[in-house]
Amino acid sequence: MKQTDVLVIGGSATGLVAAMTAKSDNPDKSVTMIRKEEIVMIPCGIPYIYGTTQNSENNILPDGGLVKLGVDIIVDEVVEVDKEKKICRTAKGETVSYDKLILGTGSEPVIPGWLKGTDLSNVFTIPKDKTYLDGLQDRLNGLEKVVVVGAGFIGVETSDELHKAGKQVVLVEILPYILGATFDDEFASEAQEKLIARGVTVRSNLGITSINGEGKVESVTFNNGETIPADAVILSLGYKPNIELAQAMGLEINDFGFIKADQYRRTSMQDVYAAGDCASKLDFATGRLSKIMLASTACTEARIAALNLFELNTYTVFRGTVGIYSTCIGETAYGVAGLIEKNARKEGFQIVTGSFTGVNRHPGKIDDSHAETVKLIVSKRSGVILGGEVMGGKCIGQLINAIGIAIQNHMTVHDLLITQIGTQPLLTASPAGFPLIKAAEIAARALR
Amino acid sequence: MKQTDVLVIGGSATGLVAAMTAKSDNPDKSVTMIRKEEIVMIPCGIPYIYGTTQNSENNILPDGGLVKLGVDIIVDEVVEVDKEKKICRTAKGETVSYDKLILGTGSEPVIPGWLKGTDLSNVFTIPKDKTYLDGLQDRLNGLEKVVVVGAGFIGVETSDELHKAGKQVVLVEILPYILGATFDDEFASEAQEKLIARGVTVRSNLGITSINGEGKVESVTFNNGETIPADAVILSLGYKPNIELAQAMGLEINDFGFIKADQYRRTSMQDVYAAGDCASKLDFATGRLSKIMLASTACTEARIAALNLFELNTYTVFRGTVGIYSTCIGETAYGVAGLIEKNARKEGFQIVTGSFTGVNRHPGKIDDSHAETVKLIVSKRSGVILGGEVMGGKCIGQLINAIGIAIQNHMTVHDLLITQIGTQPLLTASPAGFPLIKAAEIAARALR
Repeated sequence: MKQTDVLVIGGSATGLVAAMTAKSDNPDKSVTMIRKEEIVMIPCGIPYIYGTTQNSENNILPDGGLVKLGVDIIVDEVVEVDKEKKICRTAKGETVSYDKLILGTGSEPVIPGWLKGTDLSNVFTIPKDKTYLDGLQDRLNGLEKVVVVGAGFIGVETSDELHKAGKQVVLVEILPYILGATFDDEFASEAQEKLIARGVTVRSNLGITSINGEGKVESVTFNNGETIPADAVILSLGYKPNIELAQAMGLEINDFGFIKADQYRRTSMQDVYAAGDCASKLDFATGRLSKIMLASTACTEARIAALNLFELNTYTVFRGTVGIYSTCIGETAYGVAGLIEKNARKEGFQIVTGSFTGVNRHPGKIDDSHAETVKLIVSKRSGVILGGEVMGGKCIGQLINAIGIAIQNHMTVHDLLITQIGTQPLLTASPAGFPLIKAAEIAARALR
Repeated sequence: MKQTDVLVIGGSATGLVAAMTAKSDNPDKSVTMIRKEEIVMIPCGIPYIYGTTQNSENNILPDGGLVKLGVDIIVDEVVEVDKEKKICRTAKGETVSYDKLILGTGSEPVIPGWLKGTDLSNVFTIPKDKTYLDGLQDRLNGLEKVVVVGAGFIGVETSDELHKAGKQVVLVEILPYILGATFDDEFASEAQEKLIARGVTVRSNLGITSINGEGKVESVTFNNGETIPADAVILSLGYKPNIELAQAMGLEINDFGFIKADQYRRTSMQDVYAAGDCASKLDFATGRLSKIMLASTACTEARIAALNLFELNTYTVFRGTVGIYSTCIGETAYGVAGLIEKNARKEGFQIVTGSFTGVNRHPGKIDDSHAETVKLIVSKRSGVILGGEVMGGKCIGQLINAIGIAIQNHMTVHDLLITQIGTQPLLTASPAGFPLIKAAEIAARALR
């Protein structure tokens, strides 16, 4: 029987960061990762294997960092845990004893039960599974018409990439606009226009009721009665936590089906931690249970779990999901952090907003300049920044992080007004028209 | 006699933001700007008129925003202020009475008295003066060998652009590396290599003692005795505040020659404010008098002055110069915020540092990926982040702002470890190898 001080189950973002942090932080402890996959995909890079990076070989999470640190990697599946003796038994019949256990079992795609025809051939999902994804890519060869159902980030990115790869892509979304669950309408509608301009057919405000065909996909029927031809269907309707093992162990599960975990990412069982997609989370702003799954948040949680294994640190706690996303359609990027306007109002926040559009270079005549818009969502009573949305050039991927840091520090718009920023003609907007600060000015004026 | 509620003297970054903020914040008050220049240059864009943007016409600070708001613009120079009656007299003989006065008189290039030959023809500086800069560009036509003296941001950017425009450029710097006053050596040396690889001749560790020639520049002599031929010399040895008017008014001036201004940017005289390059500042981290001049900081100060004109706001105060800079050499950008390691040690801070190099896309095989390095400078006792340096792709212009916001919130490295960030394959580093967070991890480990 193998003995390890720390056992990490799962090899994606959570497993990787948990194992590396545990070992870096406790060089004298042995750390072992058990994962099902021989080769692990970079989760967020998956949509891009269909176009930008060409194939899954270019999207592999390397083991080098783990190996160099001295983390043992076992490719196998844990099928049973003896929680009294702290021993795992694997599918291949191995046993591993542990002192501390971190569950990073992740999530898998949702296939809705109400949808007819999901068992037909050429109906796919996007799991984090290289063999499946390679098979999907092979199977799409020779197929022309692909219908992608669900226009969240995965659906949008996959549609754009499949179109890039030469497919005729129809993206179906039940909300008025793509990315509409994550962005306010003025951003989501812009993103939708950009995606359409690139050649993806977007059918929004529309659900699907059935996938039809004899043995394999032939068409898709919408909830308005319309039927369109299809050679393949990709379902991107969200993910659900993998909790079978946790359930078998008797860990407490929350109402949304996530493993209950506290601010140190401890589960209901002594010495067992959970982080990432499988672990429960509260929302940073609302305190409600959150269903958001993000690799970036998973990494933060994994780090927190690992840093609290052998000693609790009151300052290393998970403070709830902020929800910082970004994506890119062509040359335009979109980012969001925290609460958007429509959700803030729905929750009952009294808010003001400030929006400003400028240019991300100064002068604007510099070659690679791009319009840049920032919107801030601000609590009326306190002036605290509850959320932000941005669209612009590729650097908004970092601008939204600046806003994310502001939100996590509970900064007010007044704080932002006196915040110094760095600007440079080739790199940023002008200091006099910096959209983040101008949006704060407008919001501050709305507060008066 | 013209009457105005708010009079802003100066039309560059400070004047623009002060006037626009004063008017936006007080729509019922009249706001007037008096400036010397008919047409104002975007200050930070000046080096780029020699290559990237081709000429000064593409680098103009537009008046549209001022005009639209209803700010009156007078092109003239204030030569005298009657501080009892609150009346300005201009060079053209006009008089303007004011209630509140904001001085944004800026700065001008330093020409050192000890340097021989600065009065020769074809010796230039880089003032914020369109007529002068256009003349300089004309005069450089037909000249080949340009020696730029002083490798701060202006010197480096100007050298790179003049080389781009076809000149043989020699950049002389007395420190071991270009940008060496602003960056630690590992960043400055990298920047130097990049600039050399682009074709600029860099002579560092070297001062100049004289500019030689009969009437016009023919050569330059270094402090090692060497003399090299030169057709033109550009001095970029820093700027000094324009304080003649302030002195004439009897305002208090600090030891470095700046107009004394408090946290609301009030001068020693009732109803007179100063902001930007001409106004005194303390350093955010050390509390010492600062000599740093930055358009971005000037804009923050201008906003603060304007927001405190008619009512003081305790939350709208200038908290000292953080010093957030960035620049770009080819495809590689460099950014810094707060204290660098060598200056922190010089000041007597007990510090640790954490540095990490990753890639700014994930997977790294995405086309436009670039190495990305972050270094954090951290107080040993408190874990507070005192400063950060970054180099990488163009988005480090926003990454350094994220770090700047962290510094201004007195975040510790422990705070950063639990900070959520947003990541996306086409836009940022991977969440598992995000250089900012990895650098924080390394620094946190060094604290233990």
